[in-house]
Amino acid sequence: MKFNPLTETDINALQSMVDTDRFSTGQSVLNLHAKDQSSHPRSRPEAVIWPLSAAEISNIVKYANAQRIPITGWGSGSSLEGNPIPVRHGIVLDFSRMNRILEIREEDFQADVEPGVVYQDLNDKLKHRGLFFPPDPGARATIGGMIANNASGTRTVYYGSTKDYVLRLTAVMANGDIVEMGTRSAKTSSGYDLIHLMVGSEGTLGIVARATVRLTGLPPEFSAAVVTFPSVEVAGKAVFEIKRSGLNPAALELLGPEAVALMNREENLDLSVAPTLFIEFHGITTGQLSEVLEMAEEICRGQGCLEFRSGLGRAERNRIFKARHGLGETITRSHPDCRILSTDVAVPNTRYPELIETIHREVDAHQIIGYTLSHAGDGNVHLVVAGKKGDRQEWDKIDRVVDTVVSRALALGGTATGEHGVGIGKRKYMATEHGASLQWMQRLKSLFDPNGILNPGKIFPE
Amino acid sequence: MKFNPLTETDINALQSMVDTDRFSTGQSVLNLHAKDQSSHPRSRPEAVIWPLSAAEISNIVKYANAQRIPITGWGSGSSLEGNPIPVRHGIVLDFSRMNRILEIREEDFQADVEPGVVYQDLNDKLKHRGLFFPPDPGARATIGGMIANNASGTRTVYYGSTKDYVLRLTAVMANGDIVEMGTRSAKTSSGYDLIHLMVGSEGTLGIVARATVRLTGLPPEFSAAVVTFPSVEVAGKAVFEIKRSGLNPAALELLGPEAVALMNREENLDLSVAPTLFIEFHGITTGQLSEVLEMAEEICRGQGCLEFRSGLGRAERNRIFKARHGLGETITRSHPDCRILSTDVAVPNTRYPELIETIHREVDAHQIIGYTLSHAGDGNVHLVVAGKKGDRQEWDKIDRVVDTVVSRALALGGTATGEHGVGIGKRKYMATEHGASLQWMQRLKSLFDPNGILNPGKIFPE
Repeated sequence: MKFNPLTETDINALQSMVDTDRFSTGQSVLNLHAKDQSSHPRSRPEAVIWPLSAAEISNIVKYANAQRIPITGWGSGSSLEGNPIPVRHGIVLDFSRMNRILEIREEDFQADVEPGVVYQDLNDKLKHRGLFFPPDPGARATIGGMIANNASGTRTVYYGSTKDYVLRLTAVMANGDIVEMGTRSAKTSSGYDLIHLMVGSEGTLGIVARATVRLTGLPPEFSAAVVTFPSVEVAGKAVFEIKRSGLNPAALELLGPEAVALMNREENLDLSVAPTLFIEFHGITTGQLSEVLEMAEEICRGQGCLEFRSGLGRAERNRIFKARHGLGETITRSHPDCRILSTDVAVPNTRYPELIETIHREVDAHQIIGYTLSHAGDGNVHLVVAGKKGDRQEWDKIDRVVDTVVSRALALGGTATGEHGVGIGKRKYMATEHGASLQWMQRLKSLFDPNGILNPGKIFPE
Repeated sequence: MKFNPLTETDINALQSMVDTDRFSTGQSVLNLHAKDQSSHPRSRPEAVIWPLSAAEISNIVKYANAQRIPITGWGSGSSLEGNPIPVRHGIVLDFSRMNRILEIREEDFQADVEPGVVYQDLNDKLKHRGLFFPPDPGARATIGGMIANNASGTRTVYYGSTKDYVLRLTAVMANGDIVEMGTRSAKTSSGYDLIHLMVGSEGTLGIVARATVRLTGLPPEFSAAVVTFPSVEVAGKAVFEIKRSGLNPAALELLGPEAVALMNREENLDLSVAPTLFIEFHGITTGQLSEVLEMAEEICRGQGCLEFRSGLGRAERNRIFKARHGLGETITRSHPDCRILSTDVAVPNTRYPELIETIHREVDAHQIIGYTLSHAGDGNVHLVVAGKKGDRQEWDKIDRVVDTVVSRALALGGTATGEHGVGIGKRKYMATEHGASLQWMQRLKSLFDPNGILNPGKIFPE
């Protein structure tokens, strides 16, 4: 695709569409929108606009489409695969001012939100009503960004991904059309599922201007345990047995010993340094939950766990999960001279131990610094590596390790990305993962965005 | 779209693609494929073919596409909205011989099936492994048909719809391409979600030749109750309160008194003839479940139920659900002179009482025979009406009532179909329900099936 650089005429035209303080070509603003939390190279937009409404977005997109100017949406910049980096420059639409919770229909278990709402802010607002929006990517992600990447997190094993929580969207299409799609009904078999087509499309098919999300009741009670294992492989087997048991955990997080040591050091925790599983159950009554926890203990002991520590109170549980959610940043902080790369793959249940084994073998063989954090209940593993900035040789090794791990996940029947999205880094695996269906994705892209202005340079291999 | 009738040349060409006993133009065969379980007018295909493989389907579709011959898939003919009726004639592909369960990967909670597998047969096979495929439309539906209509049923409130259980599909596209889509991984954020685009598209975008479905653990224990109420409206409020409580029932089925009376008479049950709610909970331990049931009882009594009968054993529970699943057929049988019309709408939780009220008012005002069966936990209501065959005046009334009910559901923010699909009968509501997004559905249809050969005359208004 050929795009045009922003001219003075474009800048004047775009500026006239919004209040003056919501358009910027200032250097510091452009720098702030040149990079997400990944280690992909910076690329600056030519202008940043903060829209306030679907109508404004529509005007901007219509203009950009006519002038062949790229448009990339921006939530909080917390993506991990370069998803919102404007690699072909053009306009970034920053949604931070479209951050209103428009309506909470408590009794319908629904909320209408603008795309810039940070999911934790929505959940803070919902807490006293006994409700919450379950997907939890951890970072201060916006709901618009979560929709773009089909984000998920530690509780997805029980509650599902973002895709399971979007009922209705107002989207601005590449031609500027404002389209409402989906229904407020909890279920439907009416027509084609445009909602699921938009969710996970990383802003390449349309731009979300508003969403109706599904909520669920906050579990009245929980029980949690920290379990240590002699090896990650043994822990992997325990994960599998817990899944098979039908105990239906709300979290099954597995951390390698390096990650646990780091959490201890940085967050003042006192966990045994070993492969560690965090298990959590959600439910109605404490009696039920302690019974379920006992069954989980039996399974873990049967698999040969070293320690099963249950009876965690709310405070300790929250501290651990906060530390878990913050691990990405903690790793970055504790390796100040390093660039951090976080990769994300997922495989079917039974292949999870093999994947973990491959990762450990590769990390050891190449002597790189690697942390494994797994949403083990979903077969979803993140390998977070730290390599010296500018050390070409080390980064060659790291790139080879990551490539081996992703290729292995695909060979095991898995996916190149469980929750971070394709963005920039996983484009090269799309042909292998999707085969002939990639052509149909490309045809969809051409149908929805014939000029390719929406977040160009993402998802599809060049 | 203009289609060509089958010529002698076409018949010879198609016949050569399959064994002779898998191609028929026999009158009785054509008659058997002219009608589903709805009351939509019969329309016969010109030929029926029983394919055995994706390759055979591909050859047939490629030929039909070149010759502009309609192709309609056929599962068990149990649809309720004319979905598989070949209204533009042409070829029916009957999947009854593609009914192999290809692989059960128990430890991945997955099964690979051909589209003609009847879901109960899969579940019979899974039972002794402690697993099941949860969507339960009731009739002896095939999994291919369930995928086409995004079928659901009595346990959807807890387990979700068919769309939540499809991981991977082999689809034959209109141009004959055989495309594998989706992943065996439990979660993914890789590329566009083609799976959800195919599910619920009623065979108009492609033909499913194979599916990988997700399974879940059979709940070790259940508890169930039958609750009667002074009015359907009061029952509706109890449903809502149970949902809000977070008790997470596995079934919340509400039947009008006429339906209960019929179940008693036809199935030798002894239920009180009143608006009746069947509640079921699934879980791990009986202690937990009886606790949850007590909470449900408290809620129902608080709302003024007449009777709360818990402690149902497995045999009684199964009899009631069998009777509930058989209600469609029971109604047909008990009105031998009548044509039966089953309509299907769904609304957000809070609007459910209003919808129910509209239905009752309309049925009473027009003095028609109407039964209401609701998957109340999902806001999904079926109004099943019986009208004398050929009685033009009565059917005019019925059509008006149905139109009022569907329009009301849409006005309440609901959908024209919760689970039966659009088929023939709901096409006229698509513009109202979907607005501008209907155009995007039409564009998708043109992209996937430019000659419109796949199940023409469905979903879209003429």
